[in-house]
Amino acid sequence: MTSQDARTPETASGSAEERATGWHKGYLSGSRPDIRVPVRRVHLTNGRDVTLYDTSGPYTDPNIDTDVRRGLAPLRENWIIARGDTEEYPGREVRPEDDGLRHTSPRGGLRNLDAVFPGRPRLPRRGRGGTTAVTQLAYAKRGEITPEMEFVALREGCSPEHVRDEIAAGRAVLPANVNHPETEPMIIGKNFLVKVNANIGNSAVTSSIEEEVEKMTWATRWGADTVMDLSTGRNIHTTREWVLRNSPVPIGTVPLYQALEKVDGKAEELTWEIYKDTVIEQCEQGVDYMTVHAGVLLRYVPLTARRKTGIVSRGGSIMAAWCLAHHKESFLYTHFEELCEILRAYDVTFSLGDGLRPGSIADANDEAQFAELRTLGELNRVAKSHDVQTMIEGPGHVPMHKIKENVDLQQEICDEAPFYTLGPLTTDIAPAYDHITSGIGAAMIAWWGTAMLCYVTPKEHLGLPDRDDVKTGVITYKIAAHAADLAKGHPGAQEWDDALSDARFEFRWEDQFNLALDPDTARAFHDETLPAEPAKTAHFCSMCGPKFCSMKISQDIRREHGGDLALDPEEGMRRKSEEFAASGNRVYLPLTD
Amino acid sequence: MTSQDARTPETASGSAEERATGWHKGYLSGSRPDIRVPVRRVHLTNGRDVTLYDTSGPYTDPNIDTDVRRGLAPLRENWIIARGDTEEYPGREVRPEDDGLRHTSPRGGLRNLDAVFPGRPRLPRRGRGGTTAVTQLAYAKRGEITPEMEFVALREGCSPEHVRDEIAAGRAVLPANVNHPETEPMIIGKNFLVKVNANIGNSAVTSSIEEEVEKMTWATRWGADTVMDLSTGRNIHTTREWVLRNSPVPIGTVPLYQALEKVDGKAEELTWEIYKDTVIEQCEQGVDYMTVHAGVLLRYVPLTARRKTGIVSRGGSIMAAWCLAHHKESFLYTHFEELCEILRAYDVTFSLGDGLRPGSIADANDEAQFAELRTLGELNRVAKSHDVQTMIEGPGHVPMHKIKENVDLQQEICDEAPFYTLGPLTTDIAPAYDHITSGIGAAMIAWWGTAMLCYVTPKEHLGLPDRDDVKTGVITYKIAAHAADLAKGHPGAQEWDDALSDARFEFRWEDQFNLALDPDTARAFHDETLPAEPAKTAHFCSMCGPKFCSMKISQDIRREHGGDLALDPEEGMRRKSEEFAASGNRVYLPLTD
Repeated sequence: MTSQDARTPETASGSAEERATGWHKGYLSGSRPDIRVPVRRVHLTNGRDVTLYDTSGPYTDPNIDTDVRRGLAPLRENWIIARGDTEEYPGREVRPEDDGLRHTSPRGGLRNLDAVFPGRPRLPRRGRGGTTAVTQLAYAKRGEITPEMEFVALREGCSPEHVRDEIAAGRAVLPANVNHPETEPMIIGKNFLVKVNANIGNSAVTSSIEEEVEKMTWATRWGADTVMDLSTGRNIHTTREWVLRNSPVPIGTVPLYQALEKVDGKAEELTWEIYKDTVIEQCEQGVDYMTVHAGVLLRYVPLTARRKTGIVSRGGSIMAAWCLAHHKESFLYTHFEELCEILRAYDVTFSLGDGLRPGSIADANDEAQFAELRTLGELNRVAKSHDVQTMIEGPGHVPMHKIKENVDLQQEICDEAPFYTLGPLTTDIAPAYDHITSGIGAAMIAWWGTAMLCYVTPKEHLGLPDRDDVKTGVITYKIAAHAADLAKGHPGAQEWDDALSDARFEFRWEDQFNLALDPDTARAFHDETLPAEPAKTAHFCSMCGPKFCSMKISQDIRREHGGDLALDPEEGMRRKSEEFAASGNRVYLPLTD
Repeated sequence: MTSQDARTPETASGSAEERATGWHKGYLSGSRPDIRVPVRRVHLTNGRDVTLYDTSGPYTDPNIDTDVRRGLAPLRENWIIARGDTEEYPGREVRPEDDGLRHTSPRGGLRNLDAVFPGRPRLPRRGRGGTTAVTQLAYAKRGEITPEMEFVALREGCSPEHVRDEIAAGRAVLPANVNHPETEPMIIGKNFLVKVNANIGNSAVTSSIEEEVEKMTWATRWGADTVMDLSTGRNIHTTREWVLRNSPVPIGTVPLYQALEKVDGKAEELTWEIYKDTVIEQCEQGVDYMTVHAGVLLRYVPLTARRKTGIVSRGGSIMAAWCLAHHKESFLYTHFEELCEILRAYDVTFSLGDGLRPGSIADANDEAQFAELRTLGELNRVAKSHDVQTMIEGPGHVPMHKIKENVDLQQEICDEAPFYTLGPLTTDIAPAYDHITSGIGAAMIAWWGTAMLCYVTPKEHLGLPDRDDVKTGVITYKIAAHAADLAKGHPGAQEWDDALSDARFEFRWEDQFNLALDPDTARAFHDETLPAEPAKTAHFCSMCGPKFCSMKISQDIRREHGGDLALDPEEGMRRKSEEFAASGNRVYLPLTD
């Protein structure tokens, strides 16, 4: 979304690095000094400004001195304290097994003790008495507009009342754990801009803490609205602490992954107690939303036996294994209300996981998938009755003609709760290009109502994404999200396209680069064939060369035949045709040759 | 499309190079020895075969010795001669200005004389008397099934009668100039597999003959069904000759580009005579289809004056400039019937160009665009009445919610003639990623009825594509085309997805790679994190690591609970749960750690 007339022209002076990339950090001011909404300002060469949504956090503000060892400033801390409904408390003691160290192993252990996050110690916070609902949903239901809601309204270019009403209706969530005061508030709902999540996380095989923090800041720089830390290897607790303390966007997790590490990977040894303890551990750290696969019921598991690719959700398969081993409904389902009471005391948002999502074209929209969706619909109502914000996860692998049914059913069954989908991938045949197979599905499902898209990188099915893959995944999904914003007719969405197309038509190359989703690559591609500085102001490009350029002719047509001509073509055309001939029929300027 | 039971198991023994890439060339046999349809054979490690559509030509057959200086064998020559309706004739004399040498220039001239194609001399061929219709449309209307139609039927896995009937109805085209006997016949129509075109071509700024021939063979290797040579610089005639003599796929051009070079880039100096001479030149060389912007009428030009990006089609802007300069309807429109008479004597297919296509989201589906489409509908009927095969070009830049209207209108106005669209791009904001912005639109418009997709590369709007860009563009568009085949329920399309998903579920990594659209990249991505050979047979990947894999659990569920369980869940589950516990609740094999 863009706003040609920035509401408050407060602009940080750009550093050399920022001028080079064409991003300039600015802020929109709210009703009070501590509500300052970051934006990306692009100053065009024609003197106009374009203001873009910005997820990159304080890192791109040259006036803020960031340090990953100290963490980000707790932007929301005073808002949380001022509400007077939370309390600090000693919290759960961090134990070695939180980092997967219960079982000694030759490969195990923190690589160095310095890895423990060195920032200021902070007691965890929760709703008074440990049960008070301190959720944005609870406030919205009471008619309150929180600073977080006002922040979001400025960010989205809508009224705070609209934000409040959408949250109150359960059509949107504002993930904001009271223990993650570093977040810049954002909202997920179909009546707002479509959002993008980037997954990061180490595994038993690869990656370090430093890499994960770097991936998080890198992902948000390119536009990730939230980040999920899906670590499954060692140092899960510590990695998450570093990520949270440095993240300007909400962080999501799948607590089950860590719980499984605590029982050394033996799914059948999982218990409600171990899981609950892990959830509280993560609530205290500040996780903003948690994927919970509570819809995998015992009777649904056999429905997957004849599938082509069975259960592909890691959480889903863990719970299926547990259900089979114990021949009982999972503890996630049987203890769901207790889980609600925990989450609401921190304002952690549910992301009800689709453990039975299809993992291949053949399995899309089958009985197992939709049976689980109906259970998620029930759980959504339970969560809402406890004032816990909730979104619903969706597939997966779905051919184009079966996509709309997914979102239509989800919206109906889950009372319009935000849908949060992984792709979907529209074909299985292109490993190494699944950002594209899924980008197609993502754009379509977002147009039809999905509120947030979980990215897929080129490494999907093949390995863990590196820095380049993270960027490619985020850019691809920002394209899908924006294409959906356009198709939904989101107010303001087209201004960005229009600004870029104007720059293209007028041969303002630098403006084209700076307005691009990825200015660096756009500039680099142009320079490959026309590297010289004069080419940046040339009225042609390397496609047609200087001799004949369609854009140039169009400009001539507009200049010669614009205005009254469009209203009175026949007469005007005749007159102009004569002028055109008299001027020597010049339709281009021979710039070279 | 795949066929698990190849019709004729004739397989060329793979060279070392081919074994490395996992492609093995095979052929399907028709009713006579000279009908041999190339296929890509993938031999799976489980002993099964998957047969894929193959566009790569003789280059991937180790039993054929190809030489770009000699050109490909004239596969169709005997079929054409045997019909007895064509004649050889001296043909037009090739002149220096055909290569843009009318005006001497310090930069001009062939870089070396060796660039003249050295293959065997061949007289051009045309319909007897220069006017006889020798088109596949004429044959189809008469009820004939040509060898080309039989070839296509084998390729598509349908009956020859279906091919004939679709061509006769004008719903499909089989581009096959009698002077391009090297082509392996293919068909473009909504009731066949969706096809992909790749553009190549030099410009005044970049590229050489050698590069263009290399791009053509590279594009077809990755799946391009046709190639358009859009050269605009020097050596247009000679470059095209090299491309045609070496191309196993139909070649398209925009004759106007060369005609403009002949008048030194001065649009107003173009005449019907110069254009006609250029068309004949290209007909004699063997161009299979030609883009003709005959729908740009004088009265439509002012409709573009108020557009955001005016006229972005190069051909459209040339013709608009001509119309304005002369204040007359273009010679393409006024001489259209004469053009039909030329094309039908060579069986050149019309690709009626959309010269007024939108070049930005803001201009999509506007009056100028649809006014031209209505004129293309008229011209389509004129062409058909002359037995000239015809397809219709489409946009461009279109937001998702306006895509369906494009194809619905085109199908209605143009009597279901094949639609051939460029993307469309679904947003303007991502230069350097327009293969993705347009891949989204391409998949959707193909689902809804577009027969062929013109690719867009990452360099769109920024420069000319190099070898890597060509590959990325083709792969992206093969994804879009296949996703559309799936969504249309094309018979056999899903077999490819199923084969790959089976391999994925069963951890047959080599089969996954070999079945992938791009085996090389899939293998390389996997090896980045798990390079060792044992990882190729491992029952896990780097996402979850060896300790817990969802696919592995699913396999256990299938093994333990498949079959009767799916029919009788409750009872079976109880029994199996006990067995599961008795077996030690093992849901995975601890391969390492």
